[in-house]
Amino acid sequence: MRILGIDPGSRTTGYGIIETQGNRLRHIDNGIIATNTTAPLATRLKTIHDGVTRIIAEFAPEVVAIEQVFLAKNPQAALVLGHARGTAMVAAVNAGLPVHEYSALQVKSAVVGYGRADKAQVQQMVKALLNLPEIAQEDAADALGVAICHAHSRTLNQALTRTGR
Amino acid sequence: MRILGIDPGSRTTGYGIIETQGNRLRHIDNGIIATNTTAPLATRLKTIHDGVTRIIAEFAPEVVAIEQVFLAKNPQAALVLGHARGTAMVAAVNAGLPVHEYSALQVKSAVVGYGRADKAQVQQMVKALLNLPEIAQEDAADALGVAICHAHSRTLNQALTRTGR
Repeated sequence: MRILGIDPGSRTTGYGIIETQGNRLRHIDNGIIATNTTAPLATRLKTIHDGVTRIIAEFAPEVVAIEQVFLAKNPQAALVLGHARGTAMVAAVNAGLPVHEYSALQVKSAVVGYGRADKAQVQQMVKALLNLPEIAQEDAADALGVAICHAHSRTLNQALTRTGR
Repeated sequence: MRILGIDPGSRTTGYGIIETQGNRLRHIDNGIIATNTTAPLATRLKTIHDGVTRIIAEFAPEVVAIEQVFLAKNPQAALVLGHARGTAMVAAVNAGLPVHEYSALQVKSAVVGYGRADKAQVQQMVKALLNLPEIAQEDAADALGVAICHAHSRTLNQALTRTGR
């Protein structure tokens, strides 16, 4: 199964694509969609929508995983982030893909095995799990993390089904 | 010029379509896009996107006007509202339409002539300006209000251009 992970942001939206082969994970691609922060909001949202649509067309994932966002204390920041995240989700549903949401706690638990892991630990484990020497952008590493989280949740669900629990 | 006004919300998104004929305003249509609040967020966003896309296809507006949202004190509410508003904006830009944003102050000033007018006064003036006996939904009335605001701003801009200011 091919999974697209997305880490949405109003400035940069990270993406990461992995493939599950049995219990193994294979890295396919990662990167960011950068918006022009001086452009009007509608233009920036179009950049995100077109970027996600292009990535889906190029890599043909079967499912999208997206992180539930960190709750900013600032309502204005939350509002703008909501625009970006909603746009990324709409691009996925417009492409006919199911969208799964995971909390930061779920991502950390799945990737590091510890829900209070820090950002550096998550990124270190993402690299180790995917056998990548480096990941150029932090947002792309976070997107790979949420894709791995979906892969693990899915494996766990299958195991639970098999053991009849 | 035909103008689509949008009042976005995660539960209901109001829309209103008006046409300017010289200095006159004509009402074309209004209503709401209601989402299933028990459905996953991605599904609700698809309802908003498809609804706005359908309205644009049916009524062929040339421009979209959308209100800058009231800043909720609650970041969670702001985040969800941002998803809905971003989705409506993306549907407009995907249809190739320019999107103009207006603050509540601008809408009230344009419709009532007084920036601190209350909601009931705005809705009363929207009905009077468009010669409508009733507007069934509050969100649709608000959407007509932002469309009227765009019509007035445009008329003012043209007047300023003509007088060379």
